[in-house]
Amino acid sequence: MSNNPQIRFCPVGIQATGVRQERDSMGTIDVPADKYWGAQTQRSLVHFSIGTEHMPLPLYHAYGIVKKAAALVNAAEGRMPQWKADLIATVADEVTAGKLDAHFPLFVWQTGSGTQTNMNVNEVIANRAIQLVGGKIGSKTPVHPNDDVNMGQSSNDSFPTAMHVVTLLEIENRLLPSVEKLIEALRQKAEQWMDVVKIGRTHLQDAVPLTVGQEWSGWVQMLEDALCGLRKDRKALFELAAGGTAVGTGLNAPAGFSKAIAARIAELTKQPFVTAPNKFAALSGLDAMARTSAGLRGLAVPLLKIANDMRWLASGPRCGLGELHLPENEPGSSIMPGKVNPTQCEAMVMIATQVLGNDNTIAFAASQGQLDLNVMRPVILANCLASIRILADGCHNFRIFSVEGTQLNEKQLKQNVGGSVMLVTALAPVIGYDKAAEIAHIAMEHDLSLKDAALKSGYVDAATFDKVVNPLDMVGEGIAGA
Amino acid sequence: MSNNPQIRFCPVGIQATGVRQERDSMGTIDVPADKYWGAQTQRSLVHFSIGTEHMPLPLYHAYGIVKKAAALVNAAEGRMPQWKADLIATVADEVTAGKLDAHFPLFVWQTGSGTQTNMNVNEVIANRAIQLVGGKIGSKTPVHPNDDVNMGQSSNDSFPTAMHVVTLLEIENRLLPSVEKLIEALRQKAEQWMDVVKIGRTHLQDAVPLTVGQEWSGWVQMLEDALCGLRKDRKALFELAAGGTAVGTGLNAPAGFSKAIAARIAELTKQPFVTAPNKFAALSGLDAMARTSAGLRGLAVPLLKIANDMRWLASGPRCGLGELHLPENEPGSSIMPGKVNPTQCEAMVMIATQVLGNDNTIAFAASQGQLDLNVMRPVILANCLASIRILADGCHNFRIFSVEGTQLNEKQLKQNVGGSVMLVTALAPVIGYDKAAEIAHIAMEHDLSLKDAALKSGYVDAATFDKVVNPLDMVGEGIAGA
Amino acid sequence: MSNNPQIRFCPVGIQATGVRQERDSMGTIDVPADKYWGAQTQRSLVHFSIGTEHMPLPLYHAYGIVKKAAALVNAAEGRMPQWKADLIATVADEVTAGKLDAHFPLFVWQTGSGTQTNMNVNEVIANRAIQLVGGKIGSKTPVHPNDDVNMGQSSNDSFPTAMHVVTLLEIENRLLPSVEKLIEALRQKAEQWMDVVKIGRTHLQDAVPLTVGQEWSGWVQMLEDALCGLRKDRKALFELAAGGTAVGTGLNAPAGFSKAIAARIAELTKQPFVTAPNKFAALSGLDAMARTSAGLRGLAVPLLKIANDMRWLASGPRCGLGELHLPENEPGSSIMPGKVNPTQCEAMVMIATQVLGNDNTIAFAASQGQLDLNVMRPVILANCLASIRILADGCHNFRIFSVEGTQLNEKQLKQNVGGSVMLVTALAPVIGYDKAAEIAHIAMEHDLSLKDAALKSGYVDAATFDKVVNPLDMVGEGIAGA
Amino acid sequence: MSNNPQIRFCPVGIQATGVRQERDSMGTIDVPADKYWGAQTQRSLVHFSIGTEHMPLPLYHAYGIVKKAAALVNAAEGRMPQWKADLIATVADEVTAGKLDAHFPLFVWQTGSGTQTNMNVNEVIANRAIQLVGGKIGSKTPVHPNDDVNMGQSSNDSFPTAMHVVTLLEIENRLLPSVEKLIEALRQKAEQWMDVVKIGRTHLQDAVPLTVGQEWSGWVQMLEDALCGLRKDRKALFELAAGGTAVGTGLNAPAGFSKAIAARIAELTKQPFVTAPNKFAALSGLDAMARTSAGLRGLAVPLLKIANDMRWLASGPRCGLGELHLPENEPGSSIMPGKVNPTQCEAMVMIATQVLGNDNTIAFAASQGQLDLNVMRPVILANCLASIRILADGCHNFRIFSVEGTQLNEKQLKQNVGGSVMLVTALAPVIGYDKAAEIAHIAMEHDLSLKDAALKSGYVDAATFDKVVNPLDMVGEGIAGA
Repeated sequence: MSNNPQIRFCPVGIQATGVRQERDSMGTIDVPADKYWGAQTQRSLVHFSIGTEHMPLPLYHAYGIVKKAAALVNAAEGRMPQWKADLIATVADEVTAGKLDAHFPLFVWQTGSGTQTNMNVNEVIANRAIQLVGGKIGSKTPVHPNDDVNMGQSSNDSFPTAMHVVTLLEIENRLLPSVEKLIEALRQKAEQWMDVVKIGRTHLQDAVPLTVGQEWSGWVQMLEDALCGLRKDRKALFELAAGGTAVGTGLNAPAGFSKAIAARIAELTKQPFVTAPNKFAALSGLDAMARTSAGLRGLAVPLLKIANDMRWLASGPRCGLGELHLPENEPGSSIMPGKVNPTQCEAMVMIATQVLGNDNTIAFAASQGQLDLNVMRPVILANCLASIRILADGCHNFRIFSVEGTQLNEKQLKQNVGGSVMLVTALAPVIGYDKAAEIAHIAMEHDLSLKDAALKSGYVDAATFDKVVNPLDMVGEGIAGA
Repeated sequence: MSNNPQIRFCPVGIQATGVRQERDSMGTIDVPADKYWGAQTQRSLVHFSIGTEHMPLPLYHAYGIVKKAAALVNAAEGRMPQWKADLIATVADEVTAGKLDAHFPLFVWQTGSGTQTNMNVNEVIANRAIQLVGGKIGSKTPVHPNDDVNMGQSSNDSFPTAMHVVTLLEIENRLLPSVEKLIEALRQKAEQWMDVVKIGRTHLQDAVPLTVGQEWSGWVQMLEDALCGLRKDRKALFELAAGGTAVGTGLNAPAGFSKAIAARIAELTKQPFVTAPNKFAALSGLDAMARTSAGLRGLAVPLLKIANDMRWLASGPRCGLGELHLPENEPGSSIMPGKVNPTQCEAMVMIATQVLGNDNTIAFAASQGQLDLNVMRPVILANCLASIRILADGCHNFRIFSVEGTQLNEKQLKQNVGGSVMLVTALAPVIGYDKAAEIAHIAMEHDLSLKDAALKSGYVDAATFDKVVNPLDMVGEGIAGA
Repeated sequence: MSNNPQIRFCPVGIQATGVRQERDSMGTIDVPADKYWGAQTQRSLVHFSIGTEHMPLPLYHAYGIVKKAAALVNAAEGRMPQWKADLIATVADEVTAGKLDAHFPLFVWQTGSGTQTNMNVNEVIANRAIQLVGGKIGSKTPVHPNDDVNMGQSSNDSFPTAMHVVTLLEIENRLLPSVEKLIEALRQKAEQWMDVVKIGRTHLQDAVPLTVGQEWSGWVQMLEDALCGLRKDRKALFELAAGGTAVGTGLNAPAGFSKAIAARIAELTKQPFVTAPNKFAALSGLDAMARTSAGLRGLAVPLLKIANDMRWLASGPRCGLGELHLPENEPGSSIMPGKVNPTQCEAMVMIATQVLGNDNTIAFAASQGQLDLNVMRPVILANCLASIRILADGCHNFRIFSVEGTQLNEKQLKQNVGGSVMLVTALAPVIGYDKAAEIAHIAMEHDLSLKDAALKSGYVDAATFDKVVNPLDMVGEGIAGA
Repeated sequence: MSNNPQIRFCPVGIQATGVRQERDSMGTIDVPADKYWGAQTQRSLVHFSIGTEHMPLPLYHAYGIVKKAAALVNAAEGRMPQWKADLIATVADEVTAGKLDAHFPLFVWQTGSGTQTNMNVNEVIANRAIQLVGGKIGSKTPVHPNDDVNMGQSSNDSFPTAMHVVTLLEIENRLLPSVEKLIEALRQKAEQWMDVVKIGRTHLQDAVPLTVGQEWSGWVQMLEDALCGLRKDRKALFELAAGGTAVGTGLNAPAGFSKAIAARIAELTKQPFVTAPNKFAALSGLDAMARTSAGLRGLAVPLLKIANDMRWLASGPRCGLGELHLPENEPGSSIMPGKVNPTQCEAMVMIATQVLGNDNTIAFAASQGQLDLNVMRPVILANCLASIRILADGCHNFRIFSVEGTQLNEKQLKQNVGGSVMLVTALAPVIGYDKAAEIAHIAMEHDLSLKDAALKSGYVDAATFDKVVNPLDMVGEGIAGA
């Protein structure tokens, strides 16, 4: 069309002070003149200034993708002029690039559907688009926040769509690489130390030996299993609610909209998003988010165990287990000079407890959907993204500042293996469990070495003892057991 | 060997009264003369009579399979005479069949490795085997609880092996069929009512219409997704710790034992069990159990939502939503005559909260492994099996006594659709969101029908209204949205 | 009245086989002829055979008290003939004494109000009363389960009343004495070892010294604080719902019933029960139970910490911290002969994780009350009583089998104090933090004793060192810090 | 002393660009030249840039109080010159007033003891003090972060002291007033509507009537009980760890320091802080924080119930329970014009689930203390303060924007009472439960009014019916039941 509005590029920002009036179905309200948001955003700020938790910015970046995809599909279906779709897409790209971050001020604690955040996005895109074509900000012309930016959508389907997109991208781009590198660092240590024999400990009590590398290989396996689980769990996020509109029926969206918008989002993100097979489930449940959170928890559980093990094995330097030296990153005490502490392990343990608590909130919230909508979305999203973020950053720092610089105290390792009574276990198949137990009791009671106790018992001669009780032989082959 | 002991079959039970002496490495102790258990079981009863929670019997039934498999592998490898392996296998079959249940008295709150329960199994099998070949009970001859029944094993690997086997079998045989049937029952209702229009409710407020079948199809989808998730999660249980023995190295088990015993267990259970790739992880972590519990939680979350929805939709009979009639199974009140309550829904909601709490305990406990062993096994097992059991039984009863007999209150359904103002949504694409909102406000303010308000507004004529605002058209096609 | 029915005492039990018919407002149903329960109990068994969890028996014992109190109040108010009240009271005493336990078969997973259990109690008392006066069991004459045994009550008020009574009594009679004795045992150890110097450990790293007794005094204080908290929390249980009847208004109960029944219950239990000031809160909330559970959790948290500390301090015997010897109660391993493990600590840690999970379920369930009734009662009660029971039994066993027999490894304690570098802290006020830190670094880098490092640094002379760095002086006075 | 450094007041801020070198026991490091912090803060930023969660600013404000109190006590005891104490106190006041907020950049995820934050405070105070007396920033002269600002303290005792102070003040100043006002608003509504009869609902099913005011009075009672519980719980915070120094012995603090600093803090805050009776418990446990969190959870539980009840009672406007009109604060839907939702209730429900999850993290973390220190402090503090903040803000907004503007739909209320069948309960004492139940069944089966059914049954005549079945008489007197 010849007289389509033309985009005249201008930098982000409104050169104005004071307030301007914006209008919605409840009337007019003053908004700061230098902000793009409109009446509904402003109302939310009035009614929902609660706490310090703002909607996470990555959500808005993902929402930009959703709005762009919707506009392009609407244009392709002939419901919206191409120039308008292109205009919306241009602004949506700015949203995704973070250029409009300052215009998304809302809090987590708002309407449970996320409507206010959806409207914040709609209003900002509309006003910025109007600005780009030289219109009057707040006029809703030629781009209307509801009729245009929200065309074919409801908050009820677009918000969970954006939730899935942002959560998936955060896992993909932030968490997975961080955990993979941590696993790799642990694996290198495991390989490096595969032949260093050490005493095993079960129930915290001296047990039969294994190698340091075997012990670390267990940690590697746990994290690999957890990561494998998370990769599977996150697949539930690929199914998008878009096209369900208000209650799942797709009212006011054209036939084919569901599939088309999912395809566009897949194209824009290069991730295999598809339309959810059942929109009623997609709107009234948030089970994919809860499942993803379970996957995050699946990482937290072994990370807590590994961080605990590392700090115990590094306990000392003189009155602990003392098998590991962790890197000394900072002074550990404001009163005890020269003290160094396993602080990265501590941060990781705290992160893990936070992830478990977040998961608790998420599972609870996911169960509280009512009838045709689950209105616990913001709390679920905020907790899920927080868990991803602290796990990702935590694994990064734990790797760089703790795992990679860990060294062995070989002297201590050797001494422990030498002194342990539990090597008697190797004798059990030869002389039977009962006699072997007797030897162990003799050693402890008389404070003898195992060999001296064994000879004292008369159940075994020195040659047999030396042949059977050999730590190197006791650690087996590899990591798969007998 | 020509003079192998011969099995002389005799019924389960020891014809004796009073006590007999049993011995272990700490000395002798009196045990009830009519019980098969030995000294270590008795010591556990002395030290760990805590609470009312006993180790779940299905664990022992699974342990029978593990002990049988171990004996057969030991014989096949020439470490144990065939007659002895056959003897152990015979008794193990009795264990699995539940014939020796009365001889497994231990509590959940015991050693964290499950050693006492493993020894209970070893002692009972040994003594029953001794009885079958005419030996002296308590003599450990010709079958020794440690040297024979426990050959090639430690509690540290056999207990988690039995945990995986019992958990998997309980899911497979008890839970999955129950949930599948519930899904099927819900699906039949969804199909039956696919064309019955009803008012939708989002934020509990009247919204645009959908069909009863659409609503129920969402429940079906949620449960199918949850079941699909659980099926994936439970796969982690297929990996068995057996062959790791004391710390994962496989000490005192012959080469190849891991794979051989997993294969035997697979054969005996007809389930695809395999040996765990890393025995250090298998002993020091219980992440497969935590993951399985997350899968169970994944069922509890939508079940809670569905049960809540059902009871709200059935609220009334005269002062509630009143859309559903649930079966009347029992009088509901001791004081209000004739009252009938949605008790199956209530039981389901309570079950779901229990499963969430159990899951909380399990995740916490799984994180508390220390060094080369996680000694939180009994509490994890008990909670996981309890969740499986109540979910399975709960779904069964919920289906039989609530879902299958649910009926519609079509009069109420129709009346609701007719009165709702939110059908105005269909007008928004025609006259714009802002004018449509104005109509809604007019209807509420003046207590008008939507049509009257629309006409009063002047934004739409009667013909257009009738064409656009048609509930039947508004529910879309099928379940996948637009 | 001259022809009042006379009680003819006969032992508990019905000499009959097969079934008899019982009737309620839904019709007749067969019940086992040798059981006292009636139609509603039987219906519950049909519809709610879920899981293995039965309503805890102590609840019924408490319910006996409630029913007796109600009958006596009804008689005192002239609403029920005295002979009938006495008859009901006689049977209620049998209930409380546990003589009718076999007649309370219902499961936890039932109606959320506990109505079925209330009716079970009503039915059993009615039929046993009928038997005692020679009537026809099942005839509801001359004692009717609803009109007589339930007179002035609803399940909605009587069930939470019984919940409060049983929970309070279980805490009072079972838990408090057990924890008090544990505290006393810990205190004795603390006093005994108040002057034994040991190395402190913060962040698991060697720190400045304290005494063993000081360390244990901290455990004592934690448990005392927790117990003090629980004592306060449980006070919420003293407020009883009885007299609220169906929705809190007290419909069908006479004026004054609330206070009178609370007074009777107080008299029968010798506990300061009073009537709840607001019956609407008492019926629609279960916050007193949630608060009590928080008090139980308050015990579990330090118990977990103490049990963890004890097993770590006892780790070894040769490759751990090795400061404590715990009693050797049983063989620890089925494969490692002579191994002894801190199994009481492990049981306690598992108990604590269970209590935290139970508390999670309880808090969640308490939040799920709807309108005028919280129907999550059975799940809350079952979890709360389970927590009380395992804490009580666990503390008992932990004390007897672990704490009381714990001994010190004084050799190890001395060696640790001697070798620690962190005694340098005492020098900081003398030479400043920075120089003291330098000395610590010298000691670690050159593997020197602290004294050698101090002298090497030149910052301090031998005399000063010996005067300042004296472990005995560093542990301060008593337990309250400087 | 004549040549004491003189304070020359200058505004907060360092006029410098680029970096300067700061030094600690590990060497030198560059810090931004315009920041007051020193080497240890900078190291923490390097090693612990994790997530988006910063240490809450109110903690620093409380820390200012602790540092001021310590300096004043040190001066009073003659360990520090008065001018130096006054100087530190002056800067500490700036910290408390928030003037130095920009200089506290650390994250929650750091060392578990809070040492880095304590050192951040020490460093900032030292450098600002040096600036005020014209010294060289970074020179540690004449005010040293460890030797002076931290005198008589360790992070191990000063951090939990600051935790208690900030938590108590936040509860006192922020939370309690907000909840009290909410309770007052609810109470006013309860009183206003004390005589408006409505239908009761138990199990979501129609029950006997009560008044709107009675129902709301239950909410008031629940919140009052919760607040009363929180007030008690928070008392544990009054006990301060200060004076325990590194491990609880008070090493390097002078005798009497504990009591003196607690008294100073009490004086500065006007709160009854005292010294903790046992410093070993105060350092190795965080049970007072866990108990406080339980108190916060105690508020969340009824708030969730109340918010749920309010939105259900306001469900509609035409197809729900429709008894309440909540204020219309904002448009509720981006697609459904004119829709209004109970968004304040939704925010409150989300807040409650967050508080429950936070509490979960806190209880878990509190249990994870090890030996002589609990190093889970930052995660516990952050969650506890977050819960306080969102509860306080949430209650404020819930009151202003939802409770205060709630109105009744009296038409609906009346209609419900008129139609309900459960008024039959009033007949039970007259004709017995069984006949009353029959009447109810007749009414439901034949769709009759209760009166018509009663007359049809023949069990009661019209006069009796009218006399007995009177809703106004059925609601009893007041709120305490019968």
